[in-house]
Amino acid sequence: MRPSGRKLSEMRAVSIETGISKHAEGSCMIRMGDTHVLCTATIEDRVPPFIKGSGLGWVTAEYGMLPRSTTSRMRRESAAGKQQGRTVEIQRLIGRSLRAGVDRVALGERQITVDCDVIQADGGTRCASITGGWVALRLAVNKLMKAGDVKSDPLISPVAAVSCGIYAGQAVLDLDYPEDSEAGVDGNFIMRGDGQLIEIQMSAEGSTFSRTQMTELLDLADAGVQELVALQLKAAE
Amino acid sequence: MRPSGRKLSEMRAVSIETGISKHAEGSCMIRMGDTHVLCTATIEDRVPPFIKGSGLGWVTAEYGMLPRSTTSRMRRESAAGKQQGRTVEIQRLIGRSLRAGVDRVALGERQITVDCDVIQADGGTRCASITGGWVALRLAVNKLMKAGDVKSDPLISPVAAVSCGIYAGQAVLDLDYPEDSEAGVDGNFIMRGDGQLIEIQMSAEGSTFSRTQMTELLDLADAGVQELVALQLKAAE
Amino acid sequence: MRPSGRKLSEMRAVSIETGISKHAEGSCMIRMGDTHVLCTATIEDRVPPFIKGSGLGWVTAEYGMLPRSTTSRMRRESAAGKQQGRTVEIQRLIGRSLRAGVDRVALGERQITVDCDVIQADGGTRCASITGGWVALRLAVNKLMKAGDVKSDPLISPVAAVSCGIYAGQAVLDLDYPEDSEAGVDGNFIMRGDGQLIEIQMSAEGSTFSRTQMTELLDLADAGVQELVALQLKAAE
Amino acid sequence: MRPSGRKLSEMRAVSIETGISKHAEGSCMIRMGDTHVLCTATIEDRVPPFIKGSGLGWVTAEYGMLPRSTTSRMRRESAAGKQQGRTVEIQRLIGRSLRAGVDRVALGERQITVDCDVIQADGGTRCASITGGWVALRLAVNKLMKAGDVKSDPLISPVAAVSCGIYAGQAVLDLDYPEDSEAGVDGNFIMRGDGQLIEIQMSAEGSTFSRTQMTELLDLADAGVQELVALQLKAAE
Amino acid sequence: MRPSGRKLSEMRAVSIETGISKHAEGSCMIRMGDTHVLCTATIEDRVPPFIKGSGLGWVTAEYGMLPRSTTSRMRRESAAGKQQGRTVEIQRLIGRSLRAGVDRVALGERQITVDCDVIQADGGTRCASITGGWVALRLAVNKLMKAGDVKSDPLISPVAAVSCGIYAGQAVLDLDYPEDSEAGVDGNFIMRGDGQLIEIQMSAEGSTFSRTQMTELLDLADAGVQELVALQLKAAE
Amino acid sequence: MRPSGRKLSEMRAVSIETGISKHAEGSCMIRMGDTHVLCTATIEDRVPPFIKGSGLGWVTAEYGMLPRSTTSRMRRESAAGKQQGRTVEIQRLIGRSLRAGVDRVALGERQITVDCDVIQADGGTRCASITGGWVALRLAVNKLMKAGDVKSDPLISPVAAVSCGIYAGQAVLDLDYPEDSEAGVDGNFIMRGDGQLIEIQMSAEGSTFSRTQMTELLDLADAGVQELVALQLKAAE
Repeated sequence: MRPSGRKLSEMRAVSIETGISKHAEGSCMIRMGDTHVLCTATIEDRVPPFIKGSGLGWVTAEYGMLPRSTTSRMRRESAAGKQQGRTVEIQRLIGRSLRAGVDRVALGERQITVDCDVIQADGGTRCASITGGWVALRLAVNKLMKAGDVKSDPLISPVAAVSCGIYAGQAVLDLDYPEDSEAGVDGNFIMRGDGQLIEIQMSAEGSTFSRTQMTELLDLADAGVQELVALQLKAAE
Repeated sequence: MRPSGRKLSEMRAVSIETGISKHAEGSCMIRMGDTHVLCTATIEDRVPPFIKGSGLGWVTAEYGMLPRSTTSRMRRESAAGKQQGRTVEIQRLIGRSLRAGVDRVALGERQITVDCDVIQADGGTRCASITGGWVALRLAVNKLMKAGDVKSDPLISPVAAVSCGIYAGQAVLDLDYPEDSEAGVDGNFIMRGDGQLIEIQMSAEGSTFSRTQMTELLDLADAGVQELVALQLKAAE
Repeated sequence: MRPSGRKLSEMRAVSIETGISKHAEGSCMIRMGDTHVLCTATIEDRVPPFIKGSGLGWVTAEYGMLPRSTTSRMRRESAAGKQQGRTVEIQRLIGRSLRAGVDRVALGERQITVDCDVIQADGGTRCASITGGWVALRLAVNKLMKAGDVKSDPLISPVAAVSCGIYAGQAVLDLDYPEDSEAGVDGNFIMRGDGQLIEIQMSAEGSTFSRTQMTELLDLADAGVQELVALQLKAAE
Repeated sequence: MRPSGRKLSEMRAVSIETGISKHAEGSCMIRMGDTHVLCTATIEDRVPPFIKGSGLGWVTAEYGMLPRSTTSRMRRESAAGKQQGRTVEIQRLIGRSLRAGVDRVALGERQITVDCDVIQADGGTRCASITGGWVALRLAVNKLMKAGDVKSDPLISPVAAVSCGIYAGQAVLDLDYPEDSEAGVDGNFIMRGDGQLIEIQMSAEGSTFSRTQMTELLDLADAGVQELVALQLKAAE
Repeated sequence: MRPSGRKLSEMRAVSIETGISKHAEGSCMIRMGDTHVLCTATIEDRVPPFIKGSGLGWVTAEYGMLPRSTTSRMRRESAAGKQQGRTVEIQRLIGRSLRAGVDRVALGERQITVDCDVIQADGGTRCASITGGWVALRLAVNKLMKAGDVKSDPLISPVAAVSCGIYAGQAVLDLDYPEDSEAGVDGNFIMRGDGQLIEIQMSAEGSTFSRTQMTELLDLADAGVQELVALQLKAAE
Repeated sequence: MRPSGRKLSEMRAVSIETGISKHAEGSCMIRMGDTHVLCTATIEDRVPPFIKGSGLGWVTAEYGMLPRSTTSRMRRESAAGKQQGRTVEIQRLIGRSLRAGVDRVALGERQITVDCDVIQADGGTRCASITGGWVALRLAVNKLMKAGDVKSDPLISPVAAVSCGIYAGQAVLDLDYPEDSEAGVDGNFIMRGDGQLIEIQMSAEGSTFSRTQMTELLDLADAGVQELVALQLKAAE
């Protein structure tokens, strides 16, 4: 029934390749099917003005799509002179989600910026960015710990994300682009490896959903995130 | 326990005053406690390029805050030369939510723009904007129907929104600003009068939540939205 | 002869409602007929760089129109990414006019920003902004004086403004929108309560005027400002 | 008493050199003392959207200052990414003033853009721009008439401008920069050669003025404009 | 003598991997040592306004760097709201260079946009972009020819580019970042496979060079380009 | 054969008029035929952040064209809200070229900004800007030396620039606009008075060139620059 032939609760093939940037403190390429996102983590000693002198750390994120990561070419945002609303929303979500897995006292007064750049898009880029972004963050933090700049591990638990939606009347896990563009209801579920919820965004474009459907989607997401967390931990070993 | 002395499941006093703009096709001032939002609906014959000639209508929204609607003065976005990420997120949410209650075929090829301008802010401005915005939309659509420009009612069911969160460890309904700035978990629930869910955004800033807590918040929201829908219908009579 | 049935020298009904913002140090809603402007005054301890350390205070203003304050909806300036030329001109005028009534030594090194936001427009918004803006400024200064932060009153005399123009060949006071859009000559007269002139802007779009006509307009304005000053003083009591 | 040694009613030496641009349809360099403005007029067949198809013509203006036209270097507006409020005000004034001398029916559906670029500034640049701009406009219109593109002369009467102000307590004509930066009251008077008034802008920065002073300034301006009109007519012969 | 141990006339290891984008009409990843650039070619039926209806085709390019492609993180240009001067220069160069190898009549009225995104930077990104960009262009044109949309081959000869410079007093081929940041003289040489020159940019930052040195650099470049052309042809087979 | 009737190796008539700005520390108007550029040099005590405290000086440049310096009117860059790519390229080139003739230690920690504003354009504006810009720089430095602010002359040798190209199959010196718009190959040669090369930019738009042609152009440029240097030295005496 699904265009890809996948089962309702089946995720796309996922791979996470680390160490792909010579310069970044942590990096990986995450591939969820044909969605490929390059994630890098940059450590800087400065923090945003609103926490200067507080002793607390900060984790933030930026998101971009290469112009031809999509089926038809998108306008380059730097040429347009501004980031689209969608871009701004996604990068705020990535940053907020990653921070929910960080002990900012243990991190100390420094900032880690996670850049998520979509090399190829086929649906679910924000979830792939969060999942891959956490791996880049993990690797950068490992470097800080190895150097003794950070004493106790500031990462509480892995953070991963997956999308679920109602496609052709049925709850499905990990929508690809053909499903996403048809689905009436679409949700992003960000969770921690310890089962805690970080963020839920369920949205119906020109449609609605019932509480029962919501529960179905949440169950699918729960299982999907557990699979992703296992892959994250293996990749960052 | 709540700073305002309200019970856990008690909303702030809500009033909706209609007909406050001489020019707009529909308008109201919604007051949820000290949060006051002016909502106007404008009907235009043109639609966005991507639906031109489709016969479908469009509903969109814009959101703004007056510079001194807040405790300390905010910079005027027009002077800054761009809308903040938060503004963009909120106005996309309002538009998407209102569209979920609209039969776009019945509306016909025209656009209704709902402007939500925050006159005074004390938490929950996006929920007040959706709830008040629907009333302005209702009044504008009434005008179209009275004029015979629209035959069957394009509004399927009222759309209303309320926030809930975990404050001091307890699930509470309709957070005001003192609660909102302390709450670890914060959610916005947008529903229709017929009980269907439109959008759920639950987010933990530097925290997490369990599935049980999620259910508690959803129950609170459900009851809150029913109260709001009654007020909307009465205001738009 | 006037569309509203007013006499040549008759102003619209004016009301000034104070204390309408919970957060601002001074605030009012001024209504001149169907023109409604919300004015707030914000006190800040910082001053612009060019007077830092001089001991002098500063008063500045910003002006905006809600998108549907007008007959047909205007584009939101924050969405357009810049303020229109007209907006910039008006807010510079408001600031300059209010400063002409301020003893900047007595004010001390602090800044008061007066925000004038047009809720509903029917001609004469800049004059209403100046007149209402002064009331907000007066209330904010009263707060400073009550707190002992300012010793002697920095407000020399009330500042008020009124428009006059040549409509259908005759000099009329306080043009509303139907008159304004027809008038060949249009002037804004900003004066102090002590009779001194602060700013005169007379302008003919596609027309001209004689010195005799100029004198007529000035006489009308003089009388109009005296009425407004009485209302300002009563409102700020 | 004046820094330049001029009498109270004495203008600076004025020269208008025409034909200084190889490309423009009309051009001149106007020099009022050390204020030098290059004015060019460009004829285009297109008109702004709001008068398309009306048969009416349009005259508009743009204004700029070279970065080192001033005592200390100003930031280049193109590098800053926007025009300052002052620039926008001035170019709107120039366009409005020139249009008051134009019969837009006789001009026919075409646009003339007058560019005024300040090569060297020493006070009074907006007045010099209007006076010189009219000469460039006159020359461009002459070209249209010679070519038979325009039948009857669309220029009703010359448009010229001069500044006056209260300097050291006395009304003086044509303020230069040292006077302008000290004057409490400062006015720009735009008139036609036939004695009609087009625009009056009198403004007191941190000061006020009486009606008697206003009359004195207007008398000075009247005489000054007559001198300028004679020079304009001679230059455009 | 060179930091990398290379001989004076030795290029870095170069690889060109094609077919790496699912969506683009042509694509490759070019690696010149640690400089990695992703190049995609997009075919569109529209052309820029200035050649509409001429029957001629157009080739243009855009260039970007991922924020952490560099040693320390660069600010994202979309977040900054504009492209840097360096970016604009480079993308104009890439487009101009590629067009010099194209028969625009044979291409027909269509546009090919070549996007060059630097994934990792270690000097010479503009040269790698041109060399890889031509391969992406070649593959896209092959697709047009296979589909019969283009009859005769519009690509006249391969276009490739290499940098040379004076490093530690000696002429060297293909500077990497450590060399580039020290070199007093630095040149980019863009040539065709048939030996014709397309563009030469030689520049001395805080230094100069003699005509003899210029000849040495040109000889090195000539040999380097021949090596690159062989690799391009093999990759695009 | 040339539209102007000039010989292949003949430059246009060149004049350099100094002292034309009352305010700038150094200034000239350079005229190369109908190309007229106003150059001013401004001395400031501050330097860019990246050399603060280094004791080194800085020379930078900005470039602009008046809207009607060209055959048809160009849009004003300040109104468009950004500088075009071409503008950015040219001003970076001017600054880089002038710095190649400056001993930045001898200059001391100060900045000189050279503004080049094109009053009238007929081809070759970047070369005229560099040649005239050096004269303005020379005069400003003379002022510093006369005042004793700089001890030894920081200007090593004059810097001048000329264009050459292949027009109608022949190498010609100093292209004017009619030649430039036809020439397939076009180069800018920036050299010092002592014969050293600073920058070479040779570019073929939709064409190519051979090494022999390149040598011809360079020979022409060499002779042209020597003529210009003689004029520079005479003008700055």
